[in-house]
Amino acid sequence: MPITVFLNGQWIAAEQAKISVFDRGFLFADGIYEVVPVYQQRPFLLVEHLARLQRSLSALQINAPDNSFWQAVISELLERNGLADALVYIQVTRGAEANRSHLAGADLQPTLFASISPLPVHWHQPKPVAVTLFDDIRWLRCDIKSTSLLANIMLKQQAHQAGYSEPLLQRDGWITEGASCNFFGVRNGIIYTAPKDHLILPGISRDHVIQLAQQLGLEVREQAFAVTDLAELDELFLTSSSREVQPVGRIDDMIIADGQCGPLTAQLVTAYHASKRTLCEIS
Amino acid sequence: MPITVFLNGQWIAAEQAKISVFDRGFLFADGIYEVVPVYQQRPFLLVEHLARLQRSLSALQINAPDNSFWQAVISELLERNGLADALVYIQVTRGAEANRSHLAGADLQPTLFASISPLPVHWHQPKPVAVTLFDDIRWLRCDIKSTSLLANIMLKQQAHQAGYSEPLLQRDGWITEGASCNFFGVRNGIIYTAPKDHLILPGISRDHVIQLAQQLGLEVREQAFAVTDLAELDELFLTSSSREVQPVGRIDDMIIADGQCGPLTAQLVTAYHASKRTLCEIS
Repeated sequence: MPITVFLNGQWIAAEQAKISVFDRGFLFADGIYEVVPVYQQRPFLLVEHLARLQRSLSALQINAPDNSFWQAVISELLERNGLADALVYIQVTRGAEANRSHLAGADLQPTLFASISPLPVHWHQPKPVAVTLFDDIRWLRCDIKSTSLLANIMLKQQAHQAGYSEPLLQRDGWITEGASCNFFGVRNGIIYTAPKDHLILPGISRDHVIQLAQQLGLEVREQAFAVTDLAELDELFLTSSSREVQPVGRIDDMIIADGQCGPLTAQLVTAYHASKRTLCEIS
Repeated sequence: MPITVFLNGQWIAAEQAKISVFDRGFLFADGIYEVVPVYQQRPFLLVEHLARLQRSLSALQINAPDNSFWQAVISELLERNGLADALVYIQVTRGAEANRSHLAGADLQPTLFASISPLPVHWHQPKPVAVTLFDDIRWLRCDIKSTSLLANIMLKQQAHQAGYSEPLLQRDGWITEGASCNFFGVRNGIIYTAPKDHLILPGISRDHVIQLAQQLGLEVREQAFAVTDLAELDELFLTSSSREVQPVGRIDDMIIADGQCGPLTAQLVTAYHASKRTLCEIS
């Protein structure tokens, strides 16, 4: 079915949704985005996603509508497209102006865009994937969820061309995250993930998984994990709104958890699925 | 006069030039650009600009038309818009696809865009500007002239809000460049500029100024310049296709060259202007 999208107050067929070539989102990647999973018509962790959206906008000094506006857009997107399980995509740019200039003019009208795509919801155990260790070449404000994503794209592309599902990024000897997901490692029963600073995206799924782990009585340490300690990992998994909890069975030639989904990872996969049911009130 | 732009083989009024919201240039900054100055209808250092365009495209593995195509586009842009002194802007993105995915589909049709704006040509001595020292938060492939420019935008915006013309960027204690221009420092008669590596844009004006300096018998060293040595600078200037040779009279509270255009800088400003006349065959 053709998708209807939201663009600057209009509801239009996806193929007809167009922006000016002078939009600063196109010329300068001067914008931010958010991806919200929806299960059975209920946006998952919406409050957290919208809080991050506002935080990104604030970092860029872009004024955009408040949360109630986006809640209404998401509801209408779901309704117009007749989707129950979906990924909602929201993008806001600083807007278009007649002349290209690094320095933006004052009082531009932000470009507001929202789209949606069907999400195949898998309730079964995900298969472990392989990752490859790459240098993290991204900028030093990875905490802003911006559309300035070329580094992520290039790293992802290179990983795929080498036969891997995702790059595992390291900066100065410390694991940061993937190209579009957060990193979790398990060693001796303790779960490690990079701290929330300017070097990683503050993942909504990341925070959610930490909460779930703590509810299960597991110890989580938000501290940098050294590349040199990877060989000691008992388990490794990635999190993101679309991957949810994704076990990793291999880093390059190094097998993790016998290439299987490790026991703590499996517990968290189950807990994540259960939380979708609970939070989205799925019967 | 309204500008006519080139977009995917069409010549259209700038206000009507639109691209899909699913263009990867808009969603991911998955694209590159080039800015070519034109003096008296003659593109300046065109061979060099087009070589860099192809280099950027190659780094992103995007297939786009060859140099003769762009030469024809530039000629027609000038003609259709009746401009003699101008800045030509070229942007190529990986193209649009129906579904948003970090990993691009194969065989996308690249988006080809070219625009033009009038360039007020100043032949007089430019006034020194003030710069402010900022941390270089950009990615580690600054050698690719990509549209993934949010870091540059933010740095420029912050510098302007603080009353400066440009940020002077430093990474790990070494000067890299500005947000949209290269750095040159003069100490004891020797001209320093950062080496061409992954930390700076390989500026066409930068290379041109080095050549001009050498023709004048001046010594140029392409080597990293330490932040701690800034106080020893006799002169400082920036280069870019639009700024040409831009003297700097102050770094934050530190006055350079008595706040004036220093003697070597003045020589290079004059030589740059002369080379425009020669290379563009201006009578």
